[in-house]
Order: sequence, then structure tokens, then C-alpha cells
Amino acid sequence: MSFNIQILPDNISVSAEKNEILKDVLHRAGIDLEAACGGLGTCRRCDVQVIEGYCDVPAIDGRVLSCQAKITGHLKIIVPEPNGLQDIQVETEFPADDKYAANDEQLVASTDISPLSIKYHLKVPPVSRDEHTSDLERLKIQLSTQTASKKEPECSLSVLRKLPEVLWQGEGDVTVTLTRCQSPEESCRLESDGQPEWRLIQIDPGNTMARYYGIACDVGTTSVTLNLLDLGTGRLLGSASSYNGQIVCGADVISRIIYARKPENLKELTDRITETINRLLNALLTLFKVNLLDVTSAVFSGNTSMIHLLLGIDPKHIREDPYVPVVKFPPRMKAGALGINIHPKASVICTPGVGSYVGGDISSGLLYSIHKRQPGGLELYIDIGTNGELVIIGDEWMMGCACSAGPAFEGVGIGCGMRAADGAIQKIVIEDNGTRFSYNVIGGGKPRGICGSGLIDLVSCFYSLGFIGKDGRFDKETIRDSNNQKLAARLTNNENRWSFTVAEADETDDNKAIYITEQEIRNILRAKAAIFSGCSLLLKKVGLGLSDIQAVTISGGFGQSLDIEKAIALGLFPDIEPDRFEYIGNASLSGAMLTLLSEKHRIHIGRIARSMTYVDLSSELDYMDEYTAALFIPHTDLSLFPSLSP
Amino acid sequence: MSFNIQILPDNISVSAEKNEILKDVLHRAGIDLEAACGGLGTCRRCDVQVIEGYCDVPAIDGRVLSCQAKITGHLKIIVPEPNGLQDIQVETEFPADDKYAANDEQLVASTDISPLSIKYHLKVPPVSRDEHTSDLERLKIQLSTQTASKKEPECSLSVLRKLPEVLWQGEGDVTVTLTRCQSPEESCRLESDGQPEWRLIQIDPGNTMARYYGIACDVGTTSVTLNLLDLGTGRLLGSASSYNGQIVCGADVISRIIYARKPENLKELTDRITETINRLLNALLTLFKVNLLDVTSAVFSGNTSMIHLLLGIDPKHIREDPYVPVVKFPPRMKAGALGINIHPKASVICTPGVGSYVGGDISSGLLYSIHKRQPGGLELYIDIGTNGELVIIGDEWMMGCACSAGPAFEGVGIGCGMRAADGAIQKIVIEDNGTRFSYNVIGGGKPRGICGSGLIDLVSCFYSLGFIGKDGRFDKETIRDSNNQKLAARLTNNENRWSFTVAEADETDDNKAIYITEQEIRNILRAKAAIFSGCSLLLKKVGLGLSDIQAVTISGGFGQSLDIEKAIALGLFPDIEPDRFEYIGNASLSGAMLTLLSEKHRIHIGRIARSMTYVDLSSELDYMDEYTAALFIPHTDLSLFPSLSP
Repeated sequence: MSFNIQILPDNISVSAEKNEILKDVLHRAGIDLEAACGGLGTCRRCDVQVIEGYCDVPAIDGRVLSCQAKITGHLKIIVPEPNGLQDIQVETEFPADDKYAANDEQLVASTDISPLSIKYHLKVPPVSRDEHTSDLERLKIQLSTQTASKKEPECSLSVLRKLPEVLWQGEGDVTVTLTRCQSPEESCRLESDGQPEWRLIQIDPGNTMARYYGIACDVGTTSVTLNLLDLGTGRLLGSASSYNGQIVCGADVISRIIYARKPENLKELTDRITETINRLLNALLTLFKVNLLDVTSAVFSGNTSMIHLLLGIDPKHIREDPYVPVVKFPPRMKAGALGINIHPKASVICTPGVGSYVGGDISSGLLYSIHKRQPGGLELYIDIGTNGELVIIGDEWMMGCACSAGPAFEGVGIGCGMRAADGAIQKIVIEDNGTRFSYNVIGGGKPRGICGSGLIDLVSCFYSLGFIGKDGRFDKETIRDSNNQKLAARLTNNENRWSFTVAEADETDDNKAIYITEQEIRNILRAKAAIFSGCSLLLKKVGLGLSDIQAVTISGGFGQSLDIEKAIALGLFPDIEPDRFEYIGNASLSGAMLTLLSEKHRIHIGRIARSMTYVDLSSELDYMDEYTAALFIPHTDLSLFPSLSP
Repeated sequence: MSFNIQILPDNISVSAEKNEILKDVLHRAGIDLEAACGGLGTCRRCDVQVIEGYCDVPAIDGRVLSCQAKITGHLKIIVPEPNGLQDIQVETEFPADDKYAANDEQLVASTDISPLSIKYHLKVPPVSRDEHTSDLERLKIQLSTQTASKKEPECSLSVLRKLPEVLWQGEGDVTVTLTRCQSPEESCRLESDGQPEWRLIQIDPGNTMARYYGIACDVGTTSVTLNLLDLGTGRLLGSASSYNGQIVCGADVISRIIYARKPENLKELTDRITETINRLLNALLTLFKVNLLDVTSAVFSGNTSMIHLLLGIDPKHIREDPYVPVVKFPPRMKAGALGINIHPKASVICTPGVGSYVGGDISSGLLYSIHKRQPGGLELYIDIGTNGELVIIGDEWMMGCACSAGPAFEGVGIGCGMRAADGAIQKIVIEDNGTRFSYNVIGGGKPRGICGSGLIDLVSCFYSLGFIGKDGRFDKETIRDSNNQKLAARLTNNENRWSFTVAEADETDDNKAIYITEQEIRNILRAKAAIFSGCSLLLKKVGLGLSDIQAVTISGGFGQSLDIEKAIALGLFPDIEPDRFEYIGNASLSGAMLTLLSEKHRIHIGRIARSMTYVDLSSELDYMDEYTAALFIPHTDLSLFPSLSP
């Protein structure tokens, strides 16, 4: 028997079978609610308001979690207003001196421009009757006068089919596009064995040298950012970003790998990321009036699981013992094979990864970081996104690991957490002699939640006020005895669950109070402990200590408004001078741009991925001890934090 | 207004618009009648019998040409019985000692087997947890122990997607298939710069080494023959042939190029040849229970126009000044891009051509011919198919040309002509002291027409009886005065058109008399003159004469039952000892098999095509003189035919 499900506010009706999960029914109706927990019922982000009818789970305050509710009869519900999963943010202005912005002009200027695809404007001389040279031969002869490459390009079938018309109608005045046919792995080898391989993928009449584009894309677990570049100049034209459309299938890498267990779900994940990329692409191509056939190369950078899912490869062994990926150096592919809406024969490469949990996004970020600043002394590279990855960079070596930090710093697993986007509290300070919190909201409006840097600030404030102890538990006595009863009153106990209200319902954008529980504070300490202990363990493996670190580079969305001193005080980062920290933004994306633009960088990124030693923390015997010791603020071993000594 | 067209004997009804061409209406109903003339109304092979109704052209003997008749009202017609266009002939037994058969065991035995695709059975060791090597890395490491090749193969996306399942479920016991990624042009270059490129296109669980197939296909203008080979042993398993499905769009190369002028017609021609190939393929794969994914390489050999049409490339400049093809060395392609139903990533190469009218079929035939017999002295290679091509082979050089011989020797342009297939008169002799013709029919049944060798015999008989003069015209007086009035009575005059009846209606398969007109005899002389004059002109260009020729190799369907002495007497071939002639069958197909099987031959065929000098007879000033002198039997210059001197 099937039931009618009426969905407001858009008044969509859809029929559902008994025992269908409400979330699946909504999905069929084209409504995807965020599911940070992957449908486990823990993130509570998919709740809907029931107006009429009942499900198999009782409604609380008239609301049910759609991932938990099974259909038992007709239903009339209200779904929340669009939650931004479909929103695309487009940027087209990049201050030339913004060292964090993707369009680092200095970076482009110092890059030898040799993109994955090349265009040549040719004047192919007419054939004389005695020569009998074919159209393709004449084209190749003319091309050879312009290319330094010894090897003749292979011609694609589609170019062969267009060749006679374009060549004869334009009297030999044509522009051709060639793609380099090598993945970073091959680029690596090129140093020794010479010639690149080329493929002729496009021919157009006349001079179309100005229509020459490429894309670089960071495929994050949470967000996807796609940059459109003019390959003639190397200039960044525009950047578009949005949530990764896979987010409704799970917030973190592990929940997506679990979701992908069914072949149809794997396909769904691949379709969803492809669709996200194509939406971003479409937004930029429309804005800049670019024909998709003029976009002839692409670089994707992402963690190992995201790249597996983009390529449609089952990632399950990444999560299962012995935790190996199917591929670390993906082969070059054609855009058409991936369903990416640019020139179907465009060369697509994915930045090469190091291991199951240190992916191409890290190689790419390191490429950018090393390019920006010639390393001097031991450097620590930290990427905090949906997961945390660390790399220690020595003179002639690199060693990397992933920390099971979880996505706490992207706001996931924290009831009021959110990513660093409009509405997120990104900074919290204590004002008026410790009597009042003051916060700073991204975008300037009312808050909707707290992002990673705000959480660091918050926990740091609590600690400096004495509201929490070294173990992150609320010190109820201190709070009760506080000379500020207005702040103290914010600590409440509901069903034996202590929580502290950061913003009252009337202060917020959605009239829901923003609060944090004791449990969540301890989750944040777990995350910081994972990162710190990863760092100290890596150093220990090479016989070095925290004090040997000369510089710390931070990448990822989390670092942008981070208060370094507070992060050190919390024990997240090693205790070195704050001015030795540098935040370099979305380095994965910047590295993808370098990979797109220059052969030198394609060779370099392959060398980075090949040369890095990958450490699997879960198989390190010392790791649990290190981790446990780091669970306190700032650490059990205070000698590691000399600057914090009273 | 639309009309009903009722088609017997199958009683199909189809509606047609006023002024539609009847042939197009039949095509829509799935009935394709042969149109050797390309719909010009000259070959008269598409006539149908009108039972009821009228078209815009008057019916003659109740019949109209469906390519000429426009619909003016309801119609009831009878179409001829299936004319064999859909028939497939399959052969699976090849006498090992048949030197003309495709399965020349000696040929295979002397060929170093190195196909375009290679299979390896691998046991990939399990991963140890400390290694973090990806599935692909472990596969490649294991593969490198078996391949001599230095370069790592590129992995296709589809293999990457299958890799984890196949590798883990079979505990590393897998078979992989790699294709060589080079066209003959690249093979040519390989001599100098070393390593081939490989692509991993298939992975299967367990040991599938026995499932390893390739195809070689001769794409003739009239007939298509496809051979299925076991690539492990090099053995030919089966051969299937049928008419080229394009034949309904025109019998010869020129009429197809004209037909292809409209883009939708070009697509139709490409679809038709692809469909023909796929039907032959399906017949063999079904017979031998072969999975299409196990067919991993293919070689196509055909004249330049046929290859253009197979690849969907507009061939119009082959026919228009300056008569150049779009491509002579087609790039390697994937079967999927061409719509050929084998492994979609299978490497497909087309044998390389020399010019617009000396195509890959000639390079391929020469490859086979040179492989069979190490040349000694000047050799003349003659391929007579739907067109005639000649190559003179010297010690270190080759020179080739095409003769505008037309398809007369394939029976086209001759009312009673047909190709060398069942029902064709292939031999004609005069018996009983010149009083009676006796003929030999292919297949042994009643005749339906005369094929090329039969036409040579017939004209030769006429000449020796004195029935025709040196110019091919009937000598009515000699015939009238002949002592055999039974034969003489066969010469009739109908509307000022002289014709000679070879077989009366009651002797034939379809109860239609087989006759030849004076005009047709002169067409045959034109064809022989084109070939002979091409030969003498080529020789003249290099300062040699007919008497310098040491050997003549004949390929193509025409030569099989040819009486060499009669052909010399007619002036078709140079006057050298008949035992210096050798017929080598469908050499284009045999060469395609060599190209499929061996890297050595792929390099060789590229060298053949590169090194041959192409002569365009139509731009040679002397050609018309040579041609005109050769229009007589045997020639105006009898000194060229010393053996015929009385």
C-alpha cells in the first residue's frame, strides 16, 4: 500500500511505500537534507515538522528526524528552508596582494606557464597537386614548425572528422589544441626519458588563441572549490564553491565509504560529486561566456577517498585492514570519461597521493607551500579540514600522517558547529573584565553556529576563566562562584547533560540557541590531542623534538581566522613563536593551479608524492600514550609548553 | 497526402508521401535493393514489379526502377527475392596447404607473434600493512616482472574501477590485457626511439589466457571479409564475408563519395559499414562462443575512401582537385569510438595508405606479398578489385598508381556482370570445334551472371572466333558467315543496340537471359587499357620496359580463376611467361592479419606506405597516349606482345 506525502512549503506531493525512510522519500522528491552523520540519527540536521499524520517514531516538539522516520501512513510535513547545500559562491575579484587568495599574482608570475593543453594558431599552406600530402600531414608539418617537441601528436578521431571542413573552408587558417598525455607519474619519468606525448583534440577555423581555458578544482569532503583559469596568461578568472553534493550521504570520509558499500550508492556518490563540479563549472562558464569546448585541461585535488569516489572506484579497502587505496597516482583521463562538462577529450589529472589518508590534496598543498617559500630548517605542514593531516618537511625528506581528528574543527559532531561560512561565529573574546562574551560572525549577520576557530576561542575562553578544568569538564563550583552571574547562569543541566549557552535564541539567525555541551568540549580536546600527538610522534620517529621546528604552515579553511596563541595555549599546536606560523589558505587548490599551469610543477608534485614517507598512526605502538597525554589543556607534560609557564 | 505502399511477397505495408522516391520508401520498410549506380537509374538492379497503381514513370514490362519512380498514389508491388546483400558466408576450415587461403600456416609459423594486445596471468602478492602500496602499484610491480617493456602501462578507468574487486576476491590471481598504443606510423618510429606505450584495458579474475582474440578485416568496396584469430597461437579460427552494406548507396568509390556529400549520408555510410562489420563479427563470435570483451585488437585494411568512410571522415577531396585524402596514416583508435562491437578499449589500427587512390589495402597486400616471397628482380603487383591498383617493386623503391579501370572486372557497369560469387560464370571455353560455348559456374548451379574472369574469357573467345575486331566491335559479317549459325543467331539487334546472348533465359537461375552488348565489350577494353597503360607508364617513368618485369603478383577476388594466357592475349597483362604470374588471393586481408599479429610487420607496413612513390596518372601528360594505344586487342604496338606474333 502506498501513502501520500505532502511536502510544504513548496507543496510537493509524492507517494511512498510503507516502511520507506522519510529521507529517501524526500530525496525522490528532489529534496536533500543535510546528513552530517550519514543517516545515523546523531547530527539531527534532517528534522522536519509534522503537520498531519504520524511516522513510526514519535515527534518531539512536532518534529521528526527524516533519516529515522519510517512511513506508516499519509503525512503532511514542512521541510526547512533551503539549507544552502545548493548555494554557489562565486568570486571574480582577487586582490593581487592577498597572499592567501588563490590568485597569487606573484605565484603566477614566477611560474613557467606550460599548461596541460597547448594551442597553436597555424597557417597551413595549400596543397600542390604533385605532393599528394594528406590534410593531416600538412597540418602536422606546419605544426612541427611551432612545436619544440620531437614526437608527432596523435590526432583524435573527432579532429580528423572536422579536419577537411575546417582546413579547406578557412584556407588553412586554423587553431589547434593539443593535450599533454601524461599523468604526474609520467611527468616524473619524463626527466629521464625525454619526450612528452601529445594528442590533437580540437581544431577550429581562424585564430582562437584567446579562447584557452583550464580548471583547477579542490574536491573537499565538505566543500568543493573550482577555479577557472586563462591558460594563455595563467590568470585566475573566477572561483566558485559550494558544498560537496555527497554531504547528504555522510559528513566525513568514513561515513561516505560506508555508504558506498552498495554499488548503486557508489554510483550515486560519483554522480553527486560530478554534478557538484558541473554546477560550479556551469556557473563560471556562463558568467565568463566560455564555451565548454575551450576548456581543455583540468586538475582535481582531493583526499584519497574523494578522488576514488570522483573516479567511481570503490574505496572500501581505505577503511578496512590493511587500509590501502586502489590507486595513489591516478592515470590521466579524458573529461568525457568522468562526465565533467568540459571538452570531452580534455586531459584530466588528479594530484597524486601518498597513502589512504594522506592524499593528493596534501601533495598539492605541499607543492604550493614549497613553491611559495623555499624551505629553511624543519617545517611542519598542517592541513585541518574534515580531517587533519601533518607533514614534517626536512632537507631531503618528508614524512606525513593523518590524525583521526574527526571533523570537529569543521563544526561536525558539535551540535552548534558549522563550517567557516556566513553565519558562523569565528572569533570569541571575553570583554568587560571577563563578564561578557563578544563574538564576530562571518558575513556580519546574526550567528547560526560556531566554526572551528570560534570553537578554539570558546574553549580557550572557558579555560582562561577557569570555567573548565585541564580535562575539559565544567568546573561547576568556579562557575557558580564567578563574579559574573550573568555568564554563570548560562551553564544549565538538562537530563544530566551540562551545557553552556553561547548565544541565546533571540540573538541567533534561526532563533535557536547556540550552546555547547561538556561532551562536545571533550570532543574538541580529542581532536586537538590527535593533531598534537601526531606531530610529536612523527618527530619522535626521526629523533627530533618540537623545539626543532622552525616554521609551521597551516592550510585548510579552518586556519583563516584562527588565533594562534589561543591554539597554542589549548595545546593544539606546538609552542613556538606565533610569528613562525603562516596560514596559506586553500593550498590544495593553489597547488592544483600550479599543476595545471606548469610542467615543472607537475614533475615536482609527482616527486613530492613519491618521496614522502607515510606513517599509519594506528599501527604505531606509542601513539596511544602520546594521544592520552595530549588530552589535557595544554598537555600533561607542561615542559613542552615553556611559553605557558607562569 | 500520404499513400499506402503494399510490398509483396512479404506483404509489408508502409505509408509514403507524394513524390517520395520509391527506393527510399522501401529503405524505410527495411528493404534495401542493390544500387550499383548509386541511384542514377543506369544499373537497373533496383527494379520492382508493379501489380496495382502507378508511379510517375511508365512501367516497362510491368516493372519500374525504384530509384527513379516517385510516388503518385497507392501502390502494390513485388520486390525481387532477397538478393543476397544480407547473406553472410562463413568459413571455418582452411586447408593448411592452400597457398591462397587466408590461413597460410606457413605464414603464421614464420611470423613472430607479437599482437597489438597482450595478456599476462599474474599472481599479485597480498599487501603487508606496513607497505601502504596501492592495489595498482602492486599490480604494476608484479606485471613488471613479466614485461620486458620499461615503460609502465597506463591504466584505463574501467580497469581501475574493477581492480579492487577482482584483485581482492581472487587473492591476487588475475589476468590482465594490455594494448599497444601505437599506430603503424608510430611503430615506424619505434625503431629509433625505443619503448612502446601500453595501456591496461582489462582485468579478469583467475587465468583467462586462453581467451585471447583479435580481428583482421578487409573493407572492400564491394565485399567485406572479417577474420577471427586466436592471438595466443596466431591461428585463424574463422572467416566471415558479405557484401559491404554501403553498396545500396553506390557500387563504386566515386558514387559513394558523391553520396556522402550530405552529412547525414556520410553518417549513413559510416553506420552501414560498421553494421556490416558488426554482423560478420557477431556471426563469428556466436559460432566460436567468444565474449566480445576478449577481442582486444583489430586491424582494418581498405582503400583510402573506404577507410575515410569507416572513420566517418568526409572523403570529398579524394574526388575533387587536388585529390588528396584527409589522412593516409590513421591514428590508432579505440573500438568503442568506432562503434565496433569488440572490447571498447581495444586498439584499432587501419593499415596506412599511400595516396587518394592507393590505399592501405595495397600497403597491406604488398606486406603479405613481400613476406611470402622475397623479391628478386623487378616485380609488378596488380590488385584488381572494384578499382585497379598497380605497384612496381624495385630493389630499394616502390612506385604505385591507380587505374581508372572502373569496376567492370567486378561485374559492375556490365548488365550481366556480377562479382565472383555463387551463380557467376567464371570460365568460358569454346568447344566442339568452335560451335558451342561451354561455361563453368561458381557453386555449380545455374548461372546468374558473369564475373570478371568470365568476361575476360568471353571477350577472348569472341576475338579468337573473329566475332569482334581489335577495337571490340562485333564483326557482323564474320558472325553472319560463321559456320555455326547456332552461335551466330545469338547476335541480335534491339533498338540499334547489338548484343550477344551468352546464356538463354531457360539456362539461367532467374530465367533472365545473360547477354553482353557491344558497348559493354568496349567498357571491358577500356578497363584493360587503363591497367595496361598504367603499367607501361609507371615503367617508363623509371626508364624501364615491360620486358624488365621478372614477376607479376595478382591479388583481389578477380584473379582467382583468371586464365592468364587469355588475359595476356587480350592485352590486359604484359606479355611475359605465364608461369611468372602468381595469384595470392585477398592479400589485403592476409596483410591485415600479419599487421595484427606482429610488431615486425607493423613496422614494415609503415615503411612500405612511407617509401612508395605515388603517381597520379591523371596528371601525367603521356597517359592519354598510352591509354589510347592500349584500347585495342591486344595493343596498337604489337611488338609489346612478341608471344602473340603469328
